[in-house]
Amino acid sequence: MSLLVVGTVAIDNVETPTERRDDLLGGSATHFSVAASFFTHVKIVGIVGADFPGEHMAMLNEKGIDTSGIVIVKGGKTMRWTGRYEPNMNDRESLETHLNVFETFDPVLPEEHRQSRYVFLANGVPGIQRKVMHQAPGRRLAVADTMDLWINIMRDDLGQLMRELDGLVLNDSEAKLLTGKENLVTAGHLVREMGPKFVIIKKGEHGAMFFSEHETYVLPAYPTTEVIDPTGAGDSFAGGMMGYLAEQDNFDPVTLKTAMAYGTIVASFNVAGFGLDRMHSLTRADIDERMGEYRKMLSF
Amino acid sequence: MSLLVVGTVAIDNVETPTERRDDLLGGSATHFSVAASFFTHVKIVGIVGADFPGEHMAMLNEKGIDTSGIVIVKGGKTMRWTGRYEPNMNDRESLETHLNVFETFDPVLPEEHRQSRYVFLANGVPGIQRKVMHQAPGRRLAVADTMDLWINIMRDDLGQLMRELDGLVLNDSEAKLLTGKENLVTAGHLVREMGPKFVIIKKGEHGAMFFSEHETYVLPAYPTTEVIDPTGAGDSFAGGMMGYLAEQDNFDPVTLKTAMAYGTIVASFNVAGFGLDRMHSLTRADIDERMGEYRKMLSF
Repeated sequence: MSLLVVGTVAIDNVETPTERRDDLLGGSATHFSVAASFFTHVKIVGIVGADFPGEHMAMLNEKGIDTSGIVIVKGGKTMRWTGRYEPNMNDRESLETHLNVFETFDPVLPEEHRQSRYVFLANGVPGIQRKVMHQAPGRRLAVADTMDLWINIMRDDLGQLMRELDGLVLNDSEAKLLTGKENLVTAGHLVREMGPKFVIIKKGEHGAMFFSEHETYVLPAYPTTEVIDPTGAGDSFAGGMMGYLAEQDNFDPVTLKTAMAYGTIVASFNVAGFGLDRMHSLTRADIDERMGEYRKMLSF
Repeated sequence: MSLLVVGTVAIDNVETPTERRDDLLGGSATHFSVAASFFTHVKIVGIVGADFPGEHMAMLNEKGIDTSGIVIVKGGKTMRWTGRYEPNMNDRESLETHLNVFETFDPVLPEEHRQSRYVFLANGVPGIQRKVMHQAPGRRLAVADTMDLWINIMRDDLGQLMRELDGLVLNDSEAKLLTGKENLVTAGHLVREMGPKFVIIKKGEHGAMFFSEHETYVLPAYPTTEVIDPTGAGDSFAGGMMGYLAEQDNFDPVTLKTAMAYGTIVASFNVAGFGLDRMHSLTRADIDERMGEYRKMLSF
């Protein structure tokens, strides 16, 4: 079943304690769609400038991603982000963010994108996320990501979006900010009461928590020493999860939990290289093999 | 199979963001032995002053714990600790620590304690932990806890202890301090290479990681909103784990993982009340019921 994602397509510079890499393919919609491409057909909607390298577009196409929804602005510049990770590889500082052509992006979905059944609204202005969602009247499942900025300055718009969403994905500090609660289980249920049928709190290296009316659970991250560049981990988690749901064309509780596990596994590969380096050579067989190890790890 | 624990028996004052409670039964050996008592017969070795309340001793005895190894020093004062938790309930400040009679405690195991097969050395001076271990020549499994203080000032003694231990339990910040590594998977394996056959890294609300030569895994904490007082969570985790191992009289890989899960569950009850409040009324049936939920949570 086809999956639609709307979000940023960017060029990243990433500095870790040991290395710096420039001009990497980045952006939330990019990491999401590459992760999801191992499971289903993905349509990506975003915007870039004329400076966007052909090799980056080729990489997305090689993964079978439908890039016809990426607007290329003549004379425009692609969004650029430069970030530096602390030695713990969890905390990072955004050194530079140039939204460029993304700043005024008001997505209009191509006709054939409007019938998408699975929709992911990567982090963005809540009002725009909502407008995009309304352009997909055939949706069965709409899930969004958000960030601290919108919680701080556009809480009403975010609230309106949340009341219409099926699922919301956010990280632990954002869940605390949104609810004022320090206990993540309390926070997760409070976020759910704001509207979404389910809420997923991402905890980075500590895994992810799921909250619905009848279920609360936490799955750990896959333990790995290969953490080269955490950029896009959350988006690839969401991509693996939504990709699996679209593949199964089902989101009952059992499928949702398996989808979270797949998201966890795909994210563990995403962080194993700069940008999307590790994802280039990754196969579904690699994912399924690690998924087997993960299942074994959690059984006793 | 009988289980021996050597460590502190204390009187705690605990301040949380919402409440303060004084004169609670505390100490590492206490939290450990109460947690383990749901699984096996526990012998506790420690030291208190004449001021140690009879009701506290009665509570330990009610749980079937052999308290004959607790030395009562006439005219001496019991160890006292006062701590304050931050709103996140993870970080805490030790406001006052008076070791009192514990300061010069050099345990001599009673004759019948020397044949214990399962031995837990709660956090203490590494040289003393090692001396105690040598007094139990019948041990099949010796596991120790440690802390940042000993890593900083007695690293050689700790190293000597580690080379003789079967298992070491420590928390995430201590594992980073001991190895200089920020990645916990890397750190866990490096600690194991220092001697212990297995290493467990406790991550508080984020669960615990296990490392042996052939296994690496992580189990999440049981997600709960009932976090009243985290004091003793790590000791009750170790107590539940060691109690189950002693009950099974086995520590093969499958039993060890199940034991870690039991430790996780018992710890989730320990934090649900001040001091040992919640543990008073807890039953093995309560533990097994939550264990069932936990197993279900981790299966998909």
